[in-house]
Amino acid sequence: MAAPVALIQGASRGLGLAFCKHILKSKSPAAVIATCRNPDGAGELRALEVQNPGRLTVVRLDVTREEDVQGAAEWVKGSFGRLDLIVNSSAMLHPSGKGETSLRDVSAKGIISTLTTNTVGPLVMAKYFAPLLQKGGGGFGQQPAEKAKQHSGIIVNITAKVGSIGDNGLGGWYSYRMSKAALNMATRNLSIELGRSRPKVVCVSLHPGTVNTDLSRPYHRNVPEDKLFSTEKSVKCLMSIIDTLNIEKTGKAYNWDGSELPW
Amino acid sequence: MAAPVALIQGASRGLGLAFCKHILKSKSPAAVIATCRNPDGAGELRALEVQNPGRLTVVRLDVTREEDVQGAAEWVKGSFGRLDLIVNSSAMLHPSGKGETSLRDVSAKGIISTLTTNTVGPLVMAKYFAPLLQKGGGGFGQQPAEKAKQHSGIIVNITAKVGSIGDNGLGGWYSYRMSKAALNMATRNLSIELGRSRPKVVCVSLHPGTVNTDLSRPYHRNVPEDKLFSTEKSVKCLMSIIDTLNIEKTGKAYNWDGSELPW
Repeated sequence: MAAPVALIQGASRGLGLAFCKHILKSKSPAAVIATCRNPDGAGELRALEVQNPGRLTVVRLDVTREEDVQGAAEWVKGSFGRLDLIVNSSAMLHPSGKGETSLRDVSAKGIISTLTTNTVGPLVMAKYFAPLLQKGGGGFGQQPAEKAKQHSGIIVNITAKVGSIGDNGLGGWYSYRMSKAALNMATRNLSIELGRSRPKVVCVSLHPGTVNTDLSRPYHRNVPEDKLFSTEKSVKCLMSIIDTLNIEKTGKAYNWDGSELPW
Repeated sequence: MAAPVALIQGASRGLGLAFCKHILKSKSPAAVIATCRNPDGAGELRALEVQNPGRLTVVRLDVTREEDVQGAAEWVKGSFGRLDLIVNSSAMLHPSGKGETSLRDVSAKGIISTLTTNTVGPLVMAKYFAPLLQKGGGGFGQQPAEKAKQHSGIIVNITAKVGSIGDNGLGGWYSYRMSKAALNMATRNLSIELGRSRPKVVCVSLHPGTVNTDLSRPYHRNVPEDKLFSTEKSVKCLMSIIDTLNIEKTGKAYNWDGSELPW
């Protein structure tokens, strides 16, 4: 069987970069396609590419530009012909770098920008890459014995616990929360459309915990030390979940510890 | 006590127009501010204004233009100084007039346009009108005896059952579903921020049923006759719910029959 192929979207830093490293190290001989907006500025990712010739390929892709997504999908089709896993990782809290603490901070421009990156991006990714996932070899997740229940590919949308409407007791962070709630709806819709046909594609939302990244940096002093995960720890937890995914588990949102999150 | 003031956003037709008629008829002497994008093209609403001098005022407001919303709020502040109820009614299924039946129909442009009207619009309305609702007289809903629990105003966001992630068993309609899921998160967030302070503003999402409007017209032949509500019937049901709203019921999504909808 051919080596699995994973595409990590938003791979220049943070969780995305850690996903690339983890798959290269733990999932040999899987190939990794690492997409980012500006490969020239992604020094660490470029170094990883040099260290992993033939296994890691960096592709320029700005998820807010539909033509970029389409172009990248055409390139992957020509180069690999299929995909086994996509992780949609890039996200912003708000263009200002800070979540809105009250309505005063809300602006149409800020929320549209956040929705475009966090919500529209992953859905447009699914549109262009789903046909390649339907040609995947099912190299990630857990395949049941029954052939009709096996999956060819997996879409992981990185969500956030604060995107759970039912769990929302604090308020604030309007743009980010709304973008992740809408992303969870996309996950649900994708799981239905792509779970209906054969070959099946699994789609889930995963919450990575509060991770030590640029996105959460302004808030680190409020997070107890043992609750602030390194990207490595978070990705290790998320890959443990991905390793057990199958079509029975599609269409849901999971916490980093594998428990299900309410919508 | 001064007469209550209601603002109906998206009042040129459909549910919004029916809300205006209902309040003028059943909630005398309440005043109604009816906003729409193009008053010159809103013949029926204009006629209603002529028939109800001093009670109905038509105001131009395109919910996708933040400066319009701000300008309208300044005008209401100057003219009334307060508000008791806002109903955010305008929505689109998709710019094409048809919900996406599959990923093939998804476009970044289509979903951003839908989110801008259905989701960002109501949130920006809340930003500029919340201070006026905090000055409201609590003329709508049910006031408890305990003063600390009384509310000054109510925000109603018209949602849709298909915007419930947990209830989604069919898929499709990506843009519309995602816009309403994100709107429900906005409702939840608003209920927290505006329920914390005094005076309190109640915020809920309401599902009007499948209503005989332009939005649903392409799908009418799939709806059993007794499930396709007239705008009058739907507004009657929704006003029955609004009449019982208080701070205990804030932050939730309700079906037209008053039952709670899952997120």
